[in-house]
Amino acid sequence: MTRTVIESKTKTVVIGFDEPFCVIGERINPTGRKKLAAELEAGDFSTVEKDALEQVACGAMVLDINAGVVYNSNPNPNETEPPLMRKMIELVQGLVDVPLCIDSSVPGALEAGLEAAQGRPLLNSVTGEEERLEKILPLVKKYNVPVVAISNDDTGISEDPDVRFEVARKIVQRAADYGIPAHDIVVDPLVMPVGAMATAGRQVFALVKRLREELGVNTTCGASNISFGLPNRHGINAAFLPMAIASGMTSAIMNPVRAVEMEAIRAANLLMNHDPNGGEWIRFSRVLDAVKEGKDFATASREAASSGGRREGRRRARG
Amino acid sequence: MTRTVIESKTKTVVIGFDEPFCVIGERINPTGRKKLAAELEAGDFSTVEKDALEQVACGAMVLDINAGVVYNSNPNPNETEPPLMRKMIELVQGLVDVPLCIDSSVPGALEAGLEAAQGRPLLNSVTGEEERLEKILPLVKKYNVPVVAISNDDTGISEDPDVRFEVARKIVQRAADYGIPAHDIVVDPLVMPVGAMATAGRQVFALVKRLREELGVNTTCGASNISFGLPNRHGINAAFLPMAIASGMTSAIMNPVRAVEMEAIRAANLLMNHDPNGGEWIRFSRVLDAVKEGKDFATASREAASSGGRREGRRRARG
Repeated sequence: MTRTVIESKTKTVVIGFDEPFCVIGERINPTGRKKLAAELEAGDFSTVEKDALEQVACGAMVLDINAGVVYNSNPNPNETEPPLMRKMIELVQGLVDVPLCIDSSVPGALEAGLEAAQGRPLLNSVTGEEERLEKILPLVKKYNVPVVAISNDDTGISEDPDVRFEVARKIVQRAADYGIPAHDIVVDPLVMPVGAMATAGRQVFALVKRLREELGVNTTCGASNISFGLPNRHGINAAFLPMAIASGMTSAIMNPVRAVEMEAIRAANLLMNHDPNGGEWIRFSRVLDAVKEGKDFATASREAASSGGRREGRRRARG
Repeated sequence: MTRTVIESKTKTVVIGFDEPFCVIGERINPTGRKKLAAELEAGDFSTVEKDALEQVACGAMVLDINAGVVYNSNPNPNETEPPLMRKMIELVQGLVDVPLCIDSSVPGALEAGLEAAQGRPLLNSVTGEEERLEKILPLVKKYNVPVVAISNDDTGISEDPDVRFEVARKIVQRAADYGIPAHDIVVDPLVMPVGAMATAGRQVFALVKRLREELGVNTTCGASNISFGLPNRHGINAAFLPMAIASGMTSAIMNPVRAVEMEAIRAANLLMNHDPNGGEWIRFSRVLDAVKEGKDFATASREAASSGGRREGRRRARG
C-alpha cells in the first residue's frame, strides 16, 4: 500500500490509499491576494497567522506555504522569496503543529524552506520540465522528503490525459534514478475547468485510477480549478471531491475554510470506510448544526475543536 | 452501450452509461406515510397529485407508483392494491407526461399497473426468490418492459457483496431464459446503512462496477438508505450519489424534492460530461439562487420550469 509520510515537529500525517483524504490548506499564498502581498512586504504577518489557525481548526491536515510575492521594492523573487519563505515557515511552525507543504517556483525558496521546516515536509513541486527535474530532484533526495509532481513538461500542459500520464511516468522514473521511491511522489494530474473542457472531470477520474494502479503513486490536485468560470462553484467542487475520492484521489490542495467542501470530504471519508464508527462525521455534524444556527464555519470549527479537547482532557483525567 | 428505454405516452427516458443520471421519484408511496394511507382509503388523491407535480418540477425523470396501503376496511392487499394501483396510474398520467415505475410486492397490482400504464413503464421489482422469479419474469416478457432486479433471494439479504452479485447474475440468466435481454434488467445491489456496516459505501461502489462490466446492466438503488441512523443525512446522501455515479451507477429511486441531493446529482452529471455546455447546471443554479433568497425548492423549481418554458416559447416564436 502506497504511503507518503509527512511530518511536523511531533505529528505524522500519512497520505495513502487506506487513509482519510488529506486536506492541504492552500490559503497561505500571496498569489492573487494583493492585500496579503502588501502586508508581507510591510512585515505584517497577521493574515498568515489567522490563515494558519483557521485552516487547521477547519480540518486542514497539512498547510501549504507559498511566499511568491513580488515586492515593489525588489522585483527579484530569487532574492526576496527565500528569506520570506523561511520567516513564514518559522512563524507558522510556532503557531500550529501540522506538517507543511513548501510551495515555490524558486528553487532557492524551496531550499530555504527545507532548511527551516521541522520534521518531514512535502515539497511543492517538480514538473516534467528538464530544468526543473534537474534542480528539484537532487533537493528531494538530499533532504529525503516527498514531492508533488505536476504533470506538465517543456511542451506545456497537454489537453490529452495520456500525455499527462506519460509525463507523470517520466517524473517517477527520473526520481527512481535518484533513488527516490514512487511512494514519495504525489502526482498532480492537473485539473482543467469543466466549463472550458467538458471531459475535464472524467479525465481526472480516469487518470487518478491509472496513476494509482500503474504507477502506485498518491495523487493531489488544485481542486477548485474544476469549477472555474461556472456559477455555484461550491456545488461543483462538493461533487467533484467525492467523485475524485471514489476514483482513488488521496489528497487535494484546497481552501478548508469552506463548510460545503469539507462536508463533502468528511462524508466521502465515512463512505470509504476511513472514519471508523463515524466518529469524525458525528463530531463534524455538530459544527454544521452551529453553522445552521448562524455561526461562521471557522468560528464553529474552532469552538468545536477546543470543546472537544476539553472533553477529551476530562475523560483522560477520569481514566 | 447498455440502454434501458422507458416511455410515457409521448416521452422517452433512457437509463444508460452515457446518459444523465436517472432520478426516479419515490414519494408516491403510502408505506410509512400514515396520513397518505388514510387519504387514499378515503378516496382523497390530493397528496398524490401534489407529489406528482412537485417531483417532476424538481427534476424527477420517472415517477415510482406504489399502492401498498393496508386499508382498515379490507386488510387483503391482493384485493385492494390492484384497483388502487390502476387508479393512481391513471391519475398521475393525466397530470404529468413522464414514464412510470410500477412498484408493488403484489403481482396482481403489478399486472393492473401494466395494463393501465401508457408507453413502456419500468416494473419494480423482481428478486432472486424462486417464487418471485416465476411470477414476475413472465409479466416482464408478456408486456415487454424493463424490470428492477433486487439482489436478495430465498436466503434473504446477504451482507456479502459477492453473494449479492451472484443473485444478480442468477436473475439476469433466468431472464435470458425467458428471452429478456440484460439491458432490460436494472439491478439494485442493495444499499446498507453505512452507520451499521462501515463497508456499505465501498461495497456498493465495487458492486456497481462489477454489475456494469461483467453483466452489462444498468443499476439503481434506494439511495437514502446509506445514511439511515446518522446525523445530517442529506450531507451523506449528497456525497454518496456522486461517488456512486463515478462508480457507474445509472439511476436511483429517491426523493427529488431535496435541493442538496439534486444539486449533487446535477453537478455529477456535469462532471461526467452528461450536461453538454453546462446548460442544465446553469439553469439549476438559478433555482438554487432563489432557494438562497428564501424560496422553498419545489416552488423555485416550478417557477424556473414555467419561466424556462416561456422563454423557449418566445425564442421559437422569433425563430
